[in-house]
Amino acid sequence: MSRKFNFSEIVEELQFQNNLIVAVVQDIKSKDVLMVAYMNKDSIKKTIKSGKAHFWSRSREKIWKKGEKSGNTQNVHEICMDCDGDALLLKVEQKGGACHKGYRSCFYRNISEDKIKITEERIFNPKKVYGE
Amino acid sequence: MSRKFNFSEIVEELQFQNNLIVAVVQDIKSKDVLMVAYMNKDSIKKTIKSGKAHFWSRSREKIWKKGEKSGNTQNVHEICMDCDGDALLLKVEQKGGACHKGYRSCFYRNISEDKIKITEERIFNPKKVYGE
Repeated sequence: MSRKFNFSEIVEELQFQNNLIVAVVQDIKSKDVLMVAYMNKDSIKKTIKSGKAHFWSRSREKIWKKGEKSGNTQNVHEICMDCDGDALLLKVEQKGGACHKGYRSCFYRNISEDKIKITEERIFNPKKVYGE
Repeated sequence: MSRKFNFSEIVEELQFQNNLIVAVVQDIKSKDVLMVAYMNKDSIKKTIKSGKAHFWSRSREKIWKKGEKSGNTQNVHEICMDCDGDALLLKVEQKGGACHKGYRSCFYRNISEDKIKITEERIFNPKKVYGE
């Protein structure tokens, strides 16, 4: 990603709610939606500067670099903003699985049928990676 | 979509915040992310029953059927939920453009370069459709 980024121009266009904006993460190759997370201004800045996805953890109340523990980082190739400026779309190259439960995508459950159905195979063992 | 849906089982798994859950809408064919919106329990129910996407409008504080004014409805083929149950992914067949500004996708602006760049062509005139 370019480092010539005019951060203040971008931030002016964004509509933060409680200092956060929702971010959808999409695999740039397969186009699968991998996860949804939240970003504050600092995590957007860190993402742009480093080229690696950073988010705001609402539960831990701090910035986290995606993959800091698992190594499953996200190289950010593109960031798009929506018409209202209240959502971001990150197009990334995902290393390993995005989901802390061991799946490639966090959206591994389909609820369109009469019950919840798992539609993906686990690609890593979360116990081994996160020690849970 | 199946009508045998066990709604209460699904809802138990979902984590609503202020009675809402974030929903990402993806084109089932192109896999483009079209928009992000919010759903409450009733809009999920209406979506499942009708097969057409319904959302909760935070500004108008009411349920709206996507395309009720523009005719640009979304036939919902699949609904997925994420690992934490706090986000939904709707895979839809989009009629016309999803964006009220006339674009196919709401994410028509790229902010990865040194300024905000429009990356799509308008496919309809919003003034003609919404009379704005």
